[in-house]
Amino acid sequence: MLEVSAAREIVLRHAKRLKADFTALMSSSLGQVIAADVASDVDSPPFDKSLMDGYAVRAADVSPTAELTVVEEIPAGKMPTKTVGPGEAVRLFTGAPIPPGADAVVMREKTDSPSADRVVIREVPTAGQFILRQATEMKVGETVIPAGTVLTPATFGLLASVGKTTVPAYPQPKVAVVATGDELVEPNRRPKPGQIRNSNGPMLTAQVALAGGLPRYIGIATDREDVLRSYIAEGLEIANVLILAGGVSAGDFDLVPKVLKDCGVTAHFHHVKMKPGKPLLFGTKGDKLVFGLPGNPVSSFVGFELFVKPALRVMGGHIDPPTATQKLTLSEPFAANNNRPTYHPAKRDGDGVRGLKWFGSPDLRAMLDADAFLVLPPGEVNYAAGAVVEVLPINRTAS
Amino acid sequence: MLEVSAAREIVLRHAKRLKADFTALMSSSLGQVIAADVASDVDSPPFDKSLMDGYAVRAADVSPTAELTVVEEIPAGKMPTKTVGPGEAVRLFTGAPIPPGADAVVMREKTDSPSADRVVIREVPTAGQFILRQATEMKVGETVIPAGTVLTPATFGLLASVGKTTVPAYPQPKVAVVATGDELVEPNRRPKPGQIRNSNGPMLTAQVALAGGLPRYIGIATDREDVLRSYIAEGLEIANVLILAGGVSAGDFDLVPKVLKDCGVTAHFHHVKMKPGKPLLFGTKGDKLVFGLPGNPVSSFVGFELFVKPALRVMGGHIDPPTATQKLTLSEPFAANNNRPTYHPAKRDGDGVRGLKWFGSPDLRAMLDADAFLVLPPGEVNYAAGAVVEVLPINRTAS
Repeated sequence: MLEVSAAREIVLRHAKRLKADFTALMSSSLGQVIAADVASDVDSPPFDKSLMDGYAVRAADVSPTAELTVVEEIPAGKMPTKTVGPGEAVRLFTGAPIPPGADAVVMREKTDSPSADRVVIREVPTAGQFILRQATEMKVGETVIPAGTVLTPATFGLLASVGKTTVPAYPQPKVAVVATGDELVEPNRRPKPGQIRNSNGPMLTAQVALAGGLPRYIGIATDREDVLRSYIAEGLEIANVLILAGGVSAGDFDLVPKVLKDCGVTAHFHHVKMKPGKPLLFGTKGDKLVFGLPGNPVSSFVGFELFVKPALRVMGGHIDPPTATQKLTLSEPFAANNNRPTYHPAKRDGDGVRGLKWFGSPDLRAMLDADAFLVLPPGEVNYAAGAVVEVLPINRTAS
Repeated sequence: MLEVSAAREIVLRHAKRLKADFTALMSSSLGQVIAADVASDVDSPPFDKSLMDGYAVRAADVSPTAELTVVEEIPAGKMPTKTVGPGEAVRLFTGAPIPPGADAVVMREKTDSPSADRVVIREVPTAGQFILRQATEMKVGETVIPAGTVLTPATFGLLASVGKTTVPAYPQPKVAVVATGDELVEPNRRPKPGQIRNSNGPMLTAQVALAGGLPRYIGIATDREDVLRSYIAEGLEIANVLILAGGVSAGDFDLVPKVLKDCGVTAHFHHVKMKPGKPLLFGTKGDKLVFGLPGNPVSSFVGFELFVKPALRVMGGHIDPPTATQKLTLSEPFAANNNRPTYHPAKRDGDGVRGLKWFGSPDLRAMLDADAFLVLPPGEVNYAAGAVVEVLPINRTAS
């Protein structure tokens, strides 16, 4: 049976970066990746600029307690109209252009103002002080945001400052979610005996959104070939990625692969050596990816994090897929005995991590507090507090 | 002058949790906080349930290589109709109810099936094996999701499983953003001499969204009292929090506080001992909070992270405001000399952190790569690689 790492390599080999398109600077674009270098259309600052409120002076002609004539005041947004001559100063504000003739700024706190057009300078300035030179931050034509940069609040600010209100970026992959199983009813219905509510639909669509995808929930496909075929065809039609939740365990294994094959999907693997979630199907049709995740909610959750999320990152143009795991110190002892490598719900606290009480793959309650999984080797493990363990972190929310 | 910690305490004292309202299980609700305990309306599992595909048997009457009569097959979603008697078995699938009479499940892999109604059992089962008892995960009436729980993908799944498709939650605070300054033009315009583009609007609205707020960008208020008054009034009308960017440095300090006072806003502080961003105004009008952030983009960014974001967390019902800082190891030497406590753009790499090249508060380019700030004490610092420093982490994106 395939190891997780080998299975992930197969998935990543088939995940192709999507075609870039223009995106605007909206909250919903945060996290997208810019697809082409962005050059500045301006120098920044556009002129030698004051870093302080105060007076622009000629450093050489200021002796201690010099009194100068204020020949002009430059508010924000205005350009100087006068040159600063010997014995003269110009009053200005943070961000204002330095007038010709001046070569230093004296902070207002170091001055006195006996009258509106006179100023007493109480420090001897050094040439260049409190002046930010034109184009220090960026020059016209210079690449200021390289392709591959992620859209963050700071990126938005910098794009805005160079006049880019739309930018070529890799789009968010569209992900169709289909729940399967005759036993499922939608959450707003009361289950009859033998039925359970579909928790995977709301959970997986939320995981898709947090991973940077655009979720499209299609519905519950009953275990009938014609229904399943129409749902799969719809998912492949409208999305870049199709997730089927349920219907891939050994018992009902035949139906999903058969219908996927009918729909033109090539299966690349059916099982992964992991727990929960051994039966996990991955297939492709052209550039479209298909994941058949096990129906138990924690199996489905783990399968998404390990295989679907990295694929979405690559399709969205991220250069580095998210680091799979990290090493943390157990804050409490932890023991387990599993026949396969196991992902056990856990919570990071401070610099450490602890395993959570968990009844197994159907038990979603343990996941309320979880922000990571312990990655356990197969066989018996018996860790003392302080042991260093492998951990797969998970995103809970955007903020 | 106020220290950052004292200023933050004043802000948090005035930030009130918003009134709870119902929210649906949509991607945009992720991160909101549930306002009331949620009880289960079902037992889960609703019946004793099989954890495997296989056969339900009577453990006591299975000897090695026993051959049993298969009296029924229970697909997912169906209830058993027969009792398992001596010498009998029922074929079932993962998740199916255990039929009366049976007390163990044998995995299909441990059986052979000589004919459709006969099964050979190749292991002696222990009573109870592979059965998850009714209500092990949750009982009818039991609180399964306590008030204060954050909406995450797993919370969505659990809410769905107990039939809650809407839930009382603290709403996302509405945050109006006003940029101020005669020198500003919107990003899609070409600045004339003396003008610069408004980068704070797109940056701050994105920061609001990542911090769990609903941003409402109002526009650029020029430095005229009537314009500023109408923008401030609009912000206070439509939002829980008003952010003004620019117009609070000493030079133009009078106008914003005067107009805020005219609009009924009480100012609580005007300056904080920090760099960048010393001039930072905080005021209130009833339960509405007003922040006057400095106009330089990095000052504005830092002011948001230190003061606005924690306020939004409290208003949104989060029990723990985000941990302000953490300790990390410098991966490169770092030296600086500042007259106030300073927040210097930095990047975490692996377990460490390094300071980024930065020209000061107008320089947003350094922030492209930043995912943290070094928190530097005032005065000269000269850290060797390996030194442990204080770090303020920042969120870059949701995923």
